[in-house]
Amino acid sequence: MISKADVIARYLPAQLTAGERGEAFAPSNIALCKYWGKRDQALNLPINASLSVSLAHLGSRTLITPSADGVDHVLLNGEEQATGSRFATKVVEFVDLFRRNSVQPLTIDTHNNIPTAAGLASSASGFAALMLALNDFYTLQLAPEQLSAFARMGSGSASRSIFTGFVEWQMGQREDGMDSHAVALNACWPQLRVGLVKVATGEKKVDSRAGMQRTVESAHLYQSWPLQAAVDLEKLHIAIAGRDFNLLGATAEQNALSMHATMIASWPPLLYWQPESVVAMQQVWELRSQGIDVYFTMDAGPNLKLLFLDKQQAEIESAFPGLEVVAPFLHQQCTADPSFTDAIKEA
Amino acid sequence: MISKADVIARYLPAQLTAGERGEAFAPSNIALCKYWGKRDQALNLPINASLSVSLAHLGSRTLITPSADGVDHVLLNGEEQATGSRFATKVVEFVDLFRRNSVQPLTIDTHNNIPTAAGLASSASGFAALMLALNDFYTLQLAPEQLSAFARMGSGSASRSIFTGFVEWQMGQREDGMDSHAVALNACWPQLRVGLVKVATGEKKVDSRAGMQRTVESAHLYQSWPLQAAVDLEKLHIAIAGRDFNLLGATAEQNALSMHATMIASWPPLLYWQPESVVAMQQVWELRSQGIDVYFTMDAGPNLKLLFLDKQQAEIESAFPGLEVVAPFLHQQCTADPSFTDAIKEA
Repeated sequence: MISKADVIARYLPAQLTAGERGEAFAPSNIALCKYWGKRDQALNLPINASLSVSLAHLGSRTLITPSADGVDHVLLNGEEQATGSRFATKVVEFVDLFRRNSVQPLTIDTHNNIPTAAGLASSASGFAALMLALNDFYTLQLAPEQLSAFARMGSGSASRSIFTGFVEWQMGQREDGMDSHAVALNACWPQLRVGLVKVATGEKKVDSRAGMQRTVESAHLYQSWPLQAAVDLEKLHIAIAGRDFNLLGATAEQNALSMHATMIASWPPLLYWQPESVVAMQQVWELRSQGIDVYFTMDAGPNLKLLFLDKQQAEIESAFPGLEVVAPFLHQQCTADPSFTDAIKEA
Repeated sequence: MISKADVIARYLPAQLTAGERGEAFAPSNIALCKYWGKRDQALNLPINASLSVSLAHLGSRTLITPSADGVDHVLLNGEEQATGSRFATKVVEFVDLFRRNSVQPLTIDTHNNIPTAAGLASSASGFAALMLALNDFYTLQLAPEQLSAFARMGSGSASRSIFTGFVEWQMGQREDGMDSHAVALNACWPQLRVGLVKVATGEKKVDSRAGMQRTVESAHLYQSWPLQAAVDLEKLHIAIAGRDFNLLGATAEQNALSMHATMIASWPPLLYWQPESVVAMQQVWELRSQGIDVYFTMDAGPNLKLLFLDKQQAEIESAFPGLEVVAPFLHQQCTADPSFTDAIKEA
């Protein structure tokens, strides 16, 4: 088995040249076809390809500078994190992959602007921003695909946060994982909205890494998950190409529920849902039965993320007071999309 | 495809001799390995074998007598059911399979003593009692396996309610389904308890028949269900033979959750759980984390059925006030079990 350090050694020189400052932003992303299950624990290589939409301005910004006092400093949202804390350890271990022989201490300052109440994972945008900031600080000039593959070694879904808009993380086949990176889909959908429903916050009892491992090891139903994911990926491509919102929404919802189904079928059972999650799901289904096109997706937690189009935003906001609504595609970002003209026509 | 009438015609003479009175009781049963998915819709032939424990005195009693006024009468718990009502239609259609050319009108009087609040299906005990009463009324003198196979044509799980105690419904291979019947396992477990938790009552939006069909047709994860069921059946045999309660409980709980997982992964999503179901599940898991050996199973509805041993009944009743507790095995029924001596020793 290849380690992260082995991979870095294959692709980067032993000694890097530090700059004075490295800075980057990476968006959070919501998977419409989920990453669930690893074929390689060390490198975060997935059992299935996944597809997400990024959350525009919501994400992580990271600034790397040389440390003035001879020791590393890790800050999160302006607060210094104790050496040995979970967050500081993960950040420093990732930085060490690149810093290696250098003894230069650094200050790594990360700000997340994701509403904490929304229960969104920050590891995806966090590791993507950190990778981009390292690329800047050491003037690595890596290609986006390499940045994505390296960010994946920090957190699987970080591979997708290197890009914006619709993003596919290709599972790859190589042992060192360098073909397991994300690519941006050249598709724009300015009418699309993501609504963040707060159900519950607080630390999860079983984190995603442990959760997916338990599922792979104990749920017989997991054996059919790669098939579900492959079918859903294909459907999502068709939905995005044809701007078929109901196909997109239905596929994302069934994919998320199938992922949760594999957890529920695990032993010991893994249920990230709270009673309030069921209430919110029933509310979405009730809205749909009234003819309102709204779907949900969920990650390894109790919160729902709603998918809908701008024309129904008012109705959905009145059904879910306090909903945080994100427009993943801004009109000005869409000029590079050859199918953008069609998208505008629909608007 | 063979119809129910074809099957009856193969095994019974065209004209039956009616008696003056046919009467029978059949117990309800709780599946520890669930029946979920049919390979033949008309005959209720299952995709997987299942295993249940019967609920002793809780079930259905049916009395068949000739009708005095020239028309059929169907009564449920003392109340006449309108001709053409769902219940009366199902009963009369089943009776017609046997009555056939006879024009003799009948009165079919069924009493269920299952607490309606417990949300237990009554079709299993109902069709089993009806089949046994028909066997009595027409003096069919059918073997238990034939009674079970015929009862299955009324409702799949009725095949198991012909027997008491632990019962396995063998899936069979024949096209006419006559090898798809239940058999009693010769095993007694007087310490075993089943607790009926009321979460919600009321008509289900999607009945079990439609639910399992939707699952088979739309859930990719269902492809792994037969494997799950086969593994669980084997584990349950081991658990019963060795009186290993934790293996029995864990297997039953994972089996039930895996069945619900296949529904959750269907499209449109099929969630029989209510928010209160999640509360009750979390309560069971909390009790287990405190060292109390309690597990649950659920059928196609929101209610939980708890599994535990007599020695922990008091603790579990205090955690679930109003719990209806059933002892599936009475000591006096256990004398025929060769392993009963061991079971008594453990008590």
